[in-house]
Amino acid sequence: MNTYEHRKGKAVLKLVRPDGTPVSMKEVVIRQTRHKFLFGCAEFAVVPLANDKLQGEQKERISWAFEKFLDLFNFATLPFYWGRFEPVKGQPQTDSLKKAAQWLKDRGCVLKGHPLCWHTLTAPWLLEMTNAEILDAQLARIRREVSDFAGLIDMWDVINEVVIMPVFDKYDNGITRICKEMGRIPLVREVFKAAREANPRAILLINDFNISEAYAILIEGLLEAGVTIDAIGIQSHMHQGYWGVEKTLEVLERFSRFNLPIHFTETTLVSGHLMPPHIEDLNDYKVEEWPSTPEGEERQAQEAVLHYKTLFAWPNVEAITWWNFLDGGWLNAPAGFITKDGRVKPIYHELYKLIKGEWWTGEQRLVTDDDGLVTVEGYLGDYEISCMGQTVPFTLHKDGSIEIRLA
Amino acid sequence: MNTYEHRKGKAVLKLVRPDGTPVSMKEVVIRQTRHKFLFGCAEFAVVPLANDKLQGEQKERISWAFEKFLDLFNFATLPFYWGRFEPVKGQPQTDSLKKAAQWLKDRGCVLKGHPLCWHTLTAPWLLEMTNAEILDAQLARIRREVSDFAGLIDMWDVINEVVIMPVFDKYDNGITRICKEMGRIPLVREVFKAAREANPRAILLINDFNISEAYAILIEGLLEAGVTIDAIGIQSHMHQGYWGVEKTLEVLERFSRFNLPIHFTETTLVSGHLMPPHIEDLNDYKVEEWPSTPEGEERQAQEAVLHYKTLFAWPNVEAITWWNFLDGGWLNAPAGFITKDGRVKPIYHELYKLIKGEWWTGEQRLVTDDDGLVTVEGYLGDYEISCMGQTVPFTLHKDGSIEIRLA
Repeated sequence: MNTYEHRKGKAVLKLVRPDGTPVSMKEVVIRQTRHKFLFGCAEFAVVPLANDKLQGEQKERISWAFEKFLDLFNFATLPFYWGRFEPVKGQPQTDSLKKAAQWLKDRGCVLKGHPLCWHTLTAPWLLEMTNAEILDAQLARIRREVSDFAGLIDMWDVINEVVIMPVFDKYDNGITRICKEMGRIPLVREVFKAAREANPRAILLINDFNISEAYAILIEGLLEAGVTIDAIGIQSHMHQGYWGVEKTLEVLERFSRFNLPIHFTETTLVSGHLMPPHIEDLNDYKVEEWPSTPEGEERQAQEAVLHYKTLFAWPNVEAITWWNFLDGGWLNAPAGFITKDGRVKPIYHELYKLIKGEWWTGEQRLVTDDDGLVTVEGYLGDYEISCMGQTVPFTLHKDGSIEIRLA
Repeated sequence: MNTYEHRKGKAVLKLVRPDGTPVSMKEVVIRQTRHKFLFGCAEFAVVPLANDKLQGEQKERISWAFEKFLDLFNFATLPFYWGRFEPVKGQPQTDSLKKAAQWLKDRGCVLKGHPLCWHTLTAPWLLEMTNAEILDAQLARIRREVSDFAGLIDMWDVINEVVIMPVFDKYDNGITRICKEMGRIPLVREVFKAAREANPRAILLINDFNISEAYAILIEGLLEAGVTIDAIGIQSHMHQGYWGVEKTLEVLERFSRFNLPIHFTETTLVSGHLMPPHIEDLNDYKVEEWPSTPEGEERQAQEAVLHYKTLFAWPNVEAITWWNFLDGGWLNAPAGFITKDGRVKPIYHELYKLIKGEWWTGEQRLVTDDDGLVTVEGYLGDYEISCMGQTVPFTLHKDGSIEIRLA
């Protein structure tokens, strides 16, 4: 298990009574309650669910799915695609997104908003503006969302797919226009600045599907230009087949030279046939039906296990987000953990064995020593300790000592 | 001919006698003597030729070839590959390169040194040094060459192929080591700084074969980081086939957004069979014989004409360098203007028709007016005007007025 040593911590707990005297020679029970590592998923059905917009069988199905979701994941990505979030200028869907965010937060999830600036699914009404107006609107939009959600959402994919942004030529859009005019670095600088000012505590990401040296060179240019990036977002939509361990390690090594946290922000493996290799833009692949198959489900589960193991073993990876939880989402792909007819796929069970099994610190029963000390080892994250009928939460960091004061 | 209007200038010359009175109503003859545009070529046989290292038939052949060279070109690239220039540490080939540079300069050529920093053909003895020592040696080498040749060579490919430099994995070398450790931008910043300090008047280029957005993003990062690049070098080794006008225009447009001069630094079209498309690194293609064929020579000539017309029509292109003049140079390719058996290929004649024909201002006979004025129009560059038995040189800029004082 040396592979995962960097994921573990060790702490000496000192249990004391309200008067400060040690709780000596008492049995304690220690349980992990949450991973520090962010095991996440994007499943936007949470928005209608949390807003009570679902009914009957559908409501039941989505509610049940989110029970499974919340049992496995501690991290969720919420949709802030501008064109959908504010289809009519001046009428953002702030309330319904807030309800969804609160619903997930109440259930223990860390949240990320995705994305604040992107040329795809951006607001179509930008096309009627001058470039200066588009930039103003973009920055105002960032300030608004990041302020409105501060405390609920403190992590953002600030800008998405900048490598292709100014040369994106499938259709005209406001964001490509301003990126082409300003250049990539000035635009990224501005959008990060707006987000940072709106919530100085937020963790701000850049995110891309392009994992070539072009992205690495862009990041180097941004860092040299003084843009503070909190984490590098790497997409791994593998509709055309699993990258394999070797390519994954190559990507990890290449993007680790910046000494920044890496988030695998959008991870997909399908449980049906693979998308043909000649498709360049995944969005070009349109199918009526994309069935999940028994062989596909086996392959998906095995490859997901390999992918998660590879990433969890790499020290500066701090998050993995799956895309999406339910089949039939983006591209109508069987990319989820739950089939369209509501069956839990093998991938769920196999990742559960890792996330809540192999990588989860089992319940420990220990006895404090004469000085009230007990040593805890385990995977980093939140824990609780029970002793003499009381339960107190604590967080296990890399190392250190923690005083637990009973009431 | 509107396509080339940006290449032309118009000036009012005022001819005056030594006492300042106008030379009225006299016939003048105006001849272009040199293009402002840099039509260049890399042909390293100039080094032994200028150093009197050739004998007999070979000397005759190379001397004859350079007569053709100098009739067509006004610009030459000289080799400064570190491993060849200084095979033994501390023993640079400065003298022989100086002789070659002086020889070409005396014959009217502008010169460029290529390259000062590159992972390929670099000094093998760098491998015995620490990274700090390699960087010191690299910067000292740049200061030495740029100082030693100032006045002779005032243009340098400062750094070559930075996009691949830190991830180049074909063999270990000192430059990849330092680029990987420092990052691309800090290395480029340092080598440009060293060159700039050694010769503030020099024109400093970055150069790459990678013409993807990775290179554009790198340039943007460098400019944002405050590195002053005087011209963007773009290689176009087309051993696997002509790019075509459309791709050439796409590249020109993409790299023009920086508002910097563009040099096509290494241009190749072969007059034999094309290199197979599956070859990724051109250096991997090794052949005993690569014959020049009649069809190949026709194709080479036609495509070269199209390529030169496309580039000459694009305003911020300021130089085109062919690679090389004689067949059998790099890769043993029939990429030259002269076959191995000393025959001048059609490409020479066709480009001659452009460079010294269509794009060359023909001799003009004009008469000054009462005030001694005469208006000259033509392609930008150096000219001479003859009047009353005297010949005076002048330079035709975009527009303006020039006083010509007769002795």
